[in-house]
Amino acid sequence: MVVHVNAATSVDGKLASRRREQLAISGPADFARVERVRAANDAVMVGVGTVLADDPSLTVDDAELVAEREERGAPPQPTRVVADSTARTPPDARVLDGSAPTVVLVASSAPAERVAAIEDAGATVVSAGAERVDLPAAVDELAARGLVDVMVEGGGELIFSLFEASLVDELSVYVGSTLIGGRDAPTLADGEGFVADYPDLDLVGVERIDDGVLLRYDC
Amino acid sequence: MVVHVNAATSVDGKLASRRREQLAISGPADFARVERVRAANDAVMVGVGTVLADDPSLTVDDAELVAEREERGAPPQPTRVVADSTARTPPDARVLDGSAPTVVLVASSAPAERVAAIEDAGATVVSAGAERVDLPAAVDELAARGLVDVMVEGGGELIFSLFEASLVDELSVYVGSTLIGGRDAPTLADGEGFVADYPDLDLVGVERIDDGVLLRYDC
Ligand SMILES: NC(=O)c1ccc[n+]([C@@H]2O[C@H](COP(=O)([O-])OP(=O)(O)OC[C@H]3O[C@@H](n4cnc5c(N)ncnc54)[C@H](OP(=O)(O)O)[C@@H]3O)[C@@H](O)[C@H]2O)c1
Ligand SMILES: NC(=O)c1ccc[n+]([C@@H]2O[C@H](COP(=O)([O-])OP(=O)(O)OC[C@H]3O[C@@H](n4cnc5c(N)ncnc54)[C@H](OP(=O)(O)O)[C@@H]3O)[C@@H](O)[C@H]2O)c1
Repeated sequence: MVVHVNAATSVDGKLASRRREQLAISGPADFARVERVRAANDAVMVGVGTVLADDPSLTVDDAELVAEREERGAPPQPTRVVADSTARTPPDARVLDGSAPTVVLVASSAPAERVAAIEDAGATVVSAGAERVDLPAAVDELAARGLVDVMVEGGGELIFSLFEASLVDELSVYVGSTLIGGRDAPTLADGEGFVADYPDLDLVGVERIDDGVLLRYDC
Repeated sequence: MVVHVNAATSVDGKLASRRREQLAISGPADFARVERVRAANDAVMVGVGTVLADDPSLTVDDAELVAEREERGAPPQPTRVVADSTARTPPDARVLDGSAPTVVLVASSAPAERVAAIEDAGATVVSAGAERVDLPAAVDELAARGLVDVMVEGGGELIFSLFEASLVDELSVYVGSTLIGGRDAPTLADGEGFVADYPDLDLVGVERIDDGVLLRYDC
């Protein structure tokens, strides 16, 4: 099982402005790279914060990449996965539009009517954890369903929790040549933060793409 | 006049943990580079937040670099500059230890007794702005005193304000191969943050140093 975190940040580590509005940090070459990474994975995962802020579709749109997946016997689209303890994913969210399979990870305390609404929209709801999604259990559950290679596309709360649980194998960060600023803007890794035993990453790739640079780490 | 911002961050853009404790983000080769940049400048500036958190000395310690400065007719040490609107720099702070000239930038509303204590410790107090240090006026005032090339060593509040005032000419960020995390940890650029008209930086250098990478931008 491989968990690969991929995100785009400004030079100051921000994923978006303090208004949590999406902004084009990377350019066309990096967008194309992200699509290739998506296509290479069994699942593409985000936190519900990203669904609420950006309403992403998380699909592979390039027909050639879809064809390549089918040639190797994979389903046309990777499965979309949302970490959403209390089932807040809106039934009209793009991740529930039926264009790809979707798994919503919830905690067992999630309100039954919201869980039902997500199931009615066609998604599979998987419960892991009591109050909050238990990520190690969730990742095992995904693997049991054949979702072994997982790409994580954010946001900073989910990414921090994955590092805290030592679940991340690879990290790719596209650093765009801009500055967002803001003590309240979301960063690549938010959560409580570490105060000791900081993860020791291994820088394995540095590549200029568009106007910025892609940094790749083994974790 | 050239304002060069230099800082070390984790991959997620943090300057320190949420406890604001300093941590070794860079290694010996980057420390040596920072000393060379210090030695090449007329002044080394920080915000009072950095003085209170880290108590840095901001001096050039390498005797060869000091000798080189003297050979070209410069004073042995760059002038230390602290942006400190209300004169909170403690009289026993290392920046007031007399080992190099020091200018403390205050606002005109700074309490007279705290200003006097800083002057008694041997520093020059320069007033610019009413309630908060007016950075464009302060930078002009430094230039009028012959402090034309200024290195800024942080922290994130001061760096954001300098970008907001379009005062930054060069930005060097050493990205260490670790992750700090934390929605309350200080980042390279804090303050209010931009929500539009994000600065357009020009990536002019990418260099591996120690276990990380140095990114250099023209601003
Ligand atoms: N630039 C990029 O590459 C990029 C990528 C993605 C997102 N973004 C930006 O990032 C921002 C959203 O990031 P975010 O950090 O607020 O949201 P996020 O990480 O996408 O989602 C956070 C939410 O996930 C849920 N979650 C469930 N289990 C969790 C667990 N074990 N650990 C942590 N979270 C868990 C939590 O809500 P519950 O407690 O309700 O479950 C949490 O509030 C938006 O502004 C978006 O634009 C940017
Ligand atoms: N990794 C690195 O390279 C590095 C470098 C430096 C610092 N750090 C870390 O950064 C943290 C400190 O950063 P910080 O952001 O809290 O402090 P900071 O930027 O060093 O100082 C901020 C303070 O400067 C004063 N200031 C005066 N005029 C200002 C202006 N026009 N705009 C903004 N600030 C102005 C303000 O206090 P008044 O309103 O009272 O004047 C403000 O609170 C510490 O944890 C330290 O360890 C790391």
